[in-house]
Amino acid sequence: MARMNGKSVLLSMAAWVVLTSSAQAELDDRSIIDLTYPFDEHTIYWPHNKPFAWEQTSWGPSSGGYWYASGQFCTAEHGGTHLDAPIHFAKDGLTLDEIPLQKLIGPAVVIDVSEAAKQDRDYRMTVADIQGWEKAYGRIPDGAIVLMRTGWGQFWPDRKAYLGSQTPDDAATLHFPGFSKEAAVYLTSGRRIDGIGIDTASMDHGPSRDFIVHQIVNGANLYGLENLANLDQLPQKGATLILLPMKIKGGSGGPVRVIALLPQEIKR
Amino acid sequence: MARMNGKSVLLSMAAWVVLTSSAQAELDDRSIIDLTYPFDEHTIYWPHNKPFAWEQTSWGPSSGGYWYASGQFCTAEHGGTHLDAPIHFAKDGLTLDEIPLQKLIGPAVVIDVSEAAKQDRDYRMTVADIQGWEKAYGRIPDGAIVLMRTGWGQFWPDRKAYLGSQTPDDAATLHFPGFSKEAAVYLTSGRRIDGIGIDTASMDHGPSRDFIVHQIVNGANLYGLENLANLDQLPQKGATLILLPMKIKGGSGGPVRVIALLPQEIKR
Repeated sequence: MARMNGKSVLLSMAAWVVLTSSAQAELDDRSIIDLTYPFDEHTIYWPHNKPFAWEQTSWGPSSGGYWYASGQFCTAEHGGTHLDAPIHFAKDGLTLDEIPLQKLIGPAVVIDVSEAAKQDRDYRMTVADIQGWEKAYGRIPDGAIVLMRTGWGQFWPDRKAYLGSQTPDDAATLHFPGFSKEAAVYLTSGRRIDGIGIDTASMDHGPSRDFIVHQIVNGANLYGLENLANLDQLPQKGATLILLPMKIKGGSGGPVRVIALLPQEIKR
Repeated sequence: MARMNGKSVLLSMAAWVVLTSSAQAELDDRSIIDLTYPFDEHTIYWPHNKPFAWEQTSWGPSSGGYWYASGQFCTAEHGGTHLDAPIHFAKDGLTLDEIPLQKLIGPAVVIDVSEAAKQDRDYRMTVADIQGWEKAYGRIPDGAIVLMRTGWGQFWPDRKAYLGSQTPDDAATLHFPGFSKEAAVYLTSGRRIDGIGIDTASMDHGPSRDFIVHQIVNGANLYGLENLANLDQLPQKGATLILLPMKIKGGSGGPVRVIALLPQEIKR
């Protein structure tokens, strides 16, 4: 609890000063990546959750002569690209609206296990995978958001392929990669991160029954991001994430828009 | 259309370089302001729209022995703190998911008309109000988001007071301030802004019947932000807005999380 409630946060102070200055220059669209899948009828939800339900309530010329379009929708909190708030798996954890804004901006640490996941679709990221990243790029910085890249985006929005089951509404049959318990402990106890994220449906791998990674991460009052898009477009180090969830009072999680600012030298 | 589809955007390139660098420093929570109201049973919706409907689907110890909390909700696109996408009032306008990410980050121009609105609760911001800001702070920068501060946050979440009617479900009886037609023309034709925003329920003032400001702003393929919170905590110049809407495919608008980064010299 102490960490999430603390006021200090790690972000470049220089960035702060300059971002809020009035200096202006050109920036093209290669410099921001959207890590968010759209919400529509194809959006993948967890077994037994209803699909995204959106409907037009008005859509056309109005009696006043002007065009008018408006809609409404229903959704589970934990479908599509979404955030798991700490209370999702921790009774006294923060709710979605309570996560400090400073925890929603931070450096992206991208750990690529896609080769291992090709060999084993139930692969769990190991401590050695994390240490391999640290050997190449240095210690995981304070305030980081640690993203596990499995390559699963290639299956979206094919629900059976993505969830790894011919019976994707049976949670006992799922197969996809996730974090290991030991990796979760390493990240939450040994490093001062803000949260973790993954490009599969869950921080825990498909066969998990105890959701131990959720228990550990949310138990540390940290958040998880699931069903992230386009992780293959991020550098392993150097991008900055900004993730702003819908502000649902008391929510256990919910839709989040996640974007990545690329370092200047990287162009897609 | 041309502007919104263009790739160039105005953001400090220096900010870009530094924000995405690995330099880290301390930042405390006074430097980011949340301009978003929570979604809950008190959230104010437009007449005839249903209130925010959220429910817990699981909330307690699970059969597996661990805590598990999950919920679901239904909402209209245009309630609470939300974004009006161009298609809301323009047949060929961009939908919510199509707005370029670069348009969602920009300098905040805050024009304070709260004194005038105290005298006239149907007040409409004039071109002179905008020119007054420009005289004090310089020409509205390209890529700006122009925010009208009316002081209406003091009434939230009292629906009758905020919408200015004892019969707030009768749209013909509403009274609150908004932009004038002439101000909308000035901003969309004379300046290169990304969007506008207001701390009332609508860009158009309560008595509007033709929603001409919506027609002009959305017609220019620009977005509007409504029911913004905490505008009284922003400086008139110098803050940077980041606004990330839920990515509803084809949406005419939807929930948006809006935050402001304050210039370093300002502490609340």
